[in-house]
Amino acid sequence: MSDTSCRIAVLGASGYTGAELVRLIATHPALEIVALSADRKAGQEMGAVFPHLRHLDLPTLQRIEELDLSGVDLVFCALPHATSQSVISALPSDLKVVDLSADFRLRNLAAYETWYGKPHSAPDLQKEAVYGLTEFYRAEIRAARLVACTGCNAATGQFALRPLIEAEVIDLDEIIIDLKAAVSGAGRSLKENLLHAELSEGYHPYAAGGTHRHLGEFDQEFSAIAGREIRVQFTPHLIPANRGILATVYVRGDGAQIHTTLAQAYAEEPFLQVLPMGELPSTRHVRGSNFCHIGVVGDRIAGRAVVVAALDNLTKGSSGQALQNANLMLGMEETMGLVLAPVFP
Amino acid sequence: MSDTSCRIAVLGASGYTGAELVRLIATHPALEIVALSADRKAGQEMGAVFPHLRHLDLPTLQRIEELDLSGVDLVFCALPHATSQSVISALPSDLKVVDLSADFRLRNLAAYETWYGKPHSAPDLQKEAVYGLTEFYRAEIRAARLVACTGCNAATGQFALRPLIEAEVIDLDEIIIDLKAAVSGAGRSLKENLLHAELSEGYHPYAAGGTHRHLGEFDQEFSAIAGREIRVQFTPHLIPANRGILATVYVRGDGAQIHTTLAQAYAEEPFLQVLPMGELPSTRHVRGSNFCHIGVVGDRIAGRAVVVAALDNLTKGSSGQALQNANLMLGMEETMGLVLAPVFP
Amino acid sequence: MSDTSCRIAVLGASGYTGAELVRLIATHPALEIVALSADRKAGQEMGAVFPHLRHLDLPTLQRIEELDLSGVDLVFCALPHATSQSVISALPSDLKVVDLSADFRLRNLAAYETWYGKPHSAPDLQKEAVYGLTEFYRAEIRAARLVACTGCNAATGQFALRPLIEAEVIDLDEIIIDLKAAVSGAGRSLKENLLHAELSEGYHPYAAGGTHRHLGEFDQEFSAIAGREIRVQFTPHLIPANRGILATVYVRGDGAQIHTTLAQAYAEEPFLQVLPMGELPSTRHVRGSNFCHIGVVGDRIAGRAVVVAALDNLTKGSSGQALQNANLMLGMEETMGLVLAPVFP
Amino acid sequence: MSDTSCRIAVLGASGYTGAELVRLIATHPALEIVALSADRKAGQEMGAVFPHLRHLDLPTLQRIEELDLSGVDLVFCALPHATSQSVISALPSDLKVVDLSADFRLRNLAAYETWYGKPHSAPDLQKEAVYGLTEFYRAEIRAARLVACTGCNAATGQFALRPLIEAEVIDLDEIIIDLKAAVSGAGRSLKENLLHAELSEGYHPYAAGGTHRHLGEFDQEFSAIAGREIRVQFTPHLIPANRGILATVYVRGDGAQIHTTLAQAYAEEPFLQVLPMGELPSTRHVRGSNFCHIGVVGDRIAGRAVVVAALDNLTKGSSGQALQNANLMLGMEETMGLVLAPVFP
Repeated sequence: MSDTSCRIAVLGASGYTGAELVRLIATHPALEIVALSADRKAGQEMGAVFPHLRHLDLPTLQRIEELDLSGVDLVFCALPHATSQSVISALPSDLKVVDLSADFRLRNLAAYETWYGKPHSAPDLQKEAVYGLTEFYRAEIRAARLVACTGCNAATGQFALRPLIEAEVIDLDEIIIDLKAAVSGAGRSLKENLLHAELSEGYHPYAAGGTHRHLGEFDQEFSAIAGREIRVQFTPHLIPANRGILATVYVRGDGAQIHTTLAQAYAEEPFLQVLPMGELPSTRHVRGSNFCHIGVVGDRIAGRAVVVAALDNLTKGSSGQALQNANLMLGMEETMGLVLAPVFP
Repeated sequence: MSDTSCRIAVLGASGYTGAELVRLIATHPALEIVALSADRKAGQEMGAVFPHLRHLDLPTLQRIEELDLSGVDLVFCALPHATSQSVISALPSDLKVVDLSADFRLRNLAAYETWYGKPHSAPDLQKEAVYGLTEFYRAEIRAARLVACTGCNAATGQFALRPLIEAEVIDLDEIIIDLKAAVSGAGRSLKENLLHAELSEGYHPYAAGGTHRHLGEFDQEFSAIAGREIRVQFTPHLIPANRGILATVYVRGDGAQIHTTLAQAYAEEPFLQVLPMGELPSTRHVRGSNFCHIGVVGDRIAGRAVVVAALDNLTKGSSGQALQNANLMLGMEETMGLVLAPVFP
Repeated sequence: MSDTSCRIAVLGASGYTGAELVRLIATHPALEIVALSADRKAGQEMGAVFPHLRHLDLPTLQRIEELDLSGVDLVFCALPHATSQSVISALPSDLKVVDLSADFRLRNLAAYETWYGKPHSAPDLQKEAVYGLTEFYRAEIRAARLVACTGCNAATGQFALRPLIEAEVIDLDEIIIDLKAAVSGAGRSLKENLLHAELSEGYHPYAAGGTHRHLGEFDQEFSAIAGREIRVQFTPHLIPANRGILATVYVRGDGAQIHTTLAQAYAEEPFLQVLPMGELPSTRHVRGSNFCHIGVVGDRIAGRAVVVAALDNLTKGSSGQALQNANLMLGMEETMGLVLAPVFP
Repeated sequence: MSDTSCRIAVLGASGYTGAELVRLIATHPALEIVALSADRKAGQEMGAVFPHLRHLDLPTLQRIEELDLSGVDLVFCALPHATSQSVISALPSDLKVVDLSADFRLRNLAAYETWYGKPHSAPDLQKEAVYGLTEFYRAEIRAARLVACTGCNAATGQFALRPLIEAEVIDLDEIIIDLKAAVSGAGRSLKENLLHAELSEGYHPYAAGGTHRHLGEFDQEFSAIAGREIRVQFTPHLIPANRGILATVYVRGDGAQIHTTLAQAYAEEPFLQVLPMGELPSTRHVRGSNFCHIGVVGDRIAGRAVVVAALDNLTKGSSGQALQNANLMLGMEETMGLVLAPVFP
């Protein structure tokens, strides 16, 4: 590492998003990991918890309160929501923080309470937080101290829809997002429905009927763009795969106009790739990468179209997005360390 | 086998639906397989082509023209479409036939030509054919000589929707079917996108925009029920699993009324199971069986609901359905040989 | 169910082997389930715990102590080891019991303590127990009150090796069993390494170096056949699949003689299928069934051969084997309810 | 790309190893792809054949004879064997070539004919070729014009065994390699047994009994080290996963000594990681990377041990290895572009 590297700490390094951060930073040319926390696995080496990282020279996992954060330039916080609030509140108030949890995504505290079931415990921090969907909040993120990364499902849906809502080329009251998510999005937690024997060779909807918490993000962001309340219909499904989110978005509008709108909006974006009209993406083609592929197809029913967006939930959907934000916050090139090609097959 | 067994031939026994027919008939108490055809594998034993069937005492695979069909009571035709037309035309005209191909599903010959790209070569047979969605055509199937089994995707969508269209409890112009299909539905054909290395850990839409041929069945059936032209929006997706179809159907209507309508319509159906309101099915719970699980959930947006239907594409979606029809055509109990419990995990 | 059905209870019905017992008994013509236990899920319906069984009319899950076992003819005990000992000790001493746990497999109590780490708590019951590898203990099982089913790995290895040891056609000191096991053999327990995200797209050895408990069974059985102490080398691997065990057994001997020995030994066995010389089995061809496929191939190194056995760990490896034993204990046809064809693909 | 980049051509870019080369070179700091060939897909863009590479600015696929190789510094040849011989024979004789096929691996032309079934057509080139197992042929590779990369299975077995044979710490006549290989090793070819529906949820041995062609490499290399003929027993298995090879190697010797020998031999190797004694590797921890993890465990039978090696067949097993060799041939740092962390989960 050069002397000009920025010094990084990762809180919650024993989860999948924590490990993905470490994987990406490992080949980032200007970041150096100097502290890793994992409460239940404190004292262990990262290479024992995640043997795929055993070739790296990494600090031993510590409890958060044991970390020495002096000289740290930026902290990634990959902790469960609710925990994040209290942990970040206790950090030095001038330390840059990229939070991967849901804690600071919703600007409206009442909305937070509605979706997460209890009052926010750090309302002042919430006011300070910038929503971390990089492509749409660049200026704010560059200036931010605390960035709240977008949820993986919420990011996928927004990449498909934001320019269309902005340009008003679709009917804002007729948006349906049918989303297919791989299992790593649920984390490394021990739940029966995440077992291989349960999930492999099976797939099913969950949190249906408008109950998934990422709807809070859709509501906030789409309404802000439209200048009025927008409510989408959203059904996530769990798919027997490890990585990937594919959102099939049903909209009303002209397919060609929709495609043009997206293609123009993302023409200069390094990670958002709009496929030729009529081509649709697959999760396999973005696996392990920070790319999002977006396709548009019209329908035999006039005035209807489908927009499909695919990304890797652990990369562009969380840890890659987080690193993209950190690059901006640290004054680096936005794409630094993130241009890894997808891994296929 | 008892002396009262019916004698069965399976044409096209070297494909997945052919093998599934043999699997099911193997434990059917009143059917006996006396002839099997497979042109490219003629001369081989079924147990060589499908080693999972090697314990069975089965006739050697023959070319269709070599088969001795004298004394055969019923033929299952599991051939590719287009081939079926010519093969069935050449069969004795009093032989009962259950066709698993798409050739005789569309009553309107112009619709057939539109969806399949060439004129129908056996229009007289088409007139005779009965559409094989058992639960809705029982009387006709009992009396039929030629039954055209429903396509697997088309069956799944119809189980979710027919009673709702019939009862007019949903908006008939606002139906979206987002379908997730396992790979065995594509058959045992050698295509790059069916390779394990391509499909595993990836999923994607295909035949989007209203181009999938099963739309011809939706159009025909839903329009017939409604008494006017109905056009649904339909996007199938290929999922990394071997068996299963899950249709997530977006409708406008009252969730509770929709649930009640389905529950009442299927109250006496042995294979169509409506889950309690708010519970949604998974493909893993119907695998290898003839059951279809159906769930309903309302949405946070008033007047919207989601109906989800799951079945095994090779069983209830094709070969199980075919056997169910054959039971009726042969004057047997409809469920005979079909009450096998799903295989989970 | 006919009046002549035998009445069955399943203890530990909320695990995979319990569910598999219920699946198999569901189409068994002469067994009726009258009681189901599951301590942590007592009060729930089986169809809620295992929705693939929701079409069955089953008793509600109860705590073991709540069960009414009067009139029960046979109990399947699908509990964790150690628990089985105490539960079976408390059952009426004339009740027939098929135990699927490891508790009563080892006749030598010292060996039990060595492999399971604590003294056996029911030594008298152990004396009474018959080892449940059906094909080799038929007479004893028919007369038994308590049968201890063989472990799934142990069964697979024994099917490959017992006739060869008996006939002394292989070198008894040079046996290596490299075994590949699907994940359902580890049960429905919440362990990190059983998560889909951990296991899918990965495979690895476990319990290597002679530490796997099923070695106790190999030691006992092979030594008994040989009349002297036999110790095999055994390395199990966890494979990203739900069902299946494949044992690749490296032996010294003449390939043709080995094949002949196995083919003759199993010529009349309904479930043990010896493939033609040189053909090797796959787990996919026995999935969901009670069959075991066995193949033999010689090696380019003279005097060496490989025997490969494949079965479904939940069926022939546990619940199917258990039912096969129960059929014998109840005076029924051994194959009753067990001739279901494998489910492929 | 800097002006000091080396200019690279990839022949056979439409297969998996070709695509993997492009993926790796995409982030290599000193290589630039200037030509890509693919006969059957000539005229197409690489991003159409492999959409995961669509973000890259790559030359259009051409037929080999259309390629302009002037100014090219090195060619990767990822063609099928037999084809490679004739293609490489026609290349300018001063052009550096890294061949990923089997054509130039066997120094003995009679051995080539034995394993590949026909005489070698370029015996002079064969004499010139250097065997490309980087860690053991570094000096020769640095000086070579033509390097023949090691087969993926052969590499895995050799990493586990070479230092042990060299140090004579194991019995050279008692080596068994039980290998588990993911499906991408079979390439993108259209074969029935590579279909998802065939392979998923199934696993099985293939090319058993000493018939797999990679045995030619084991024979050549192990015999050369030992100074006498060595013949190992080798059984590969196809596993339902996309990437990965895991070799379970049964040896006679002292476990601790074996571990020490490997640990010392690989102490300075950047990509060969010997795990602590008793720990065994998993394919999931090397996926997408150039690392090979190696573990050793003793056995309860004295004098026996198991060595387990895991690598990614497409990376360290072929394209990563090829790039490692190219780095040496071009005078670059051996690890350049290859230190990507594995992708897990």
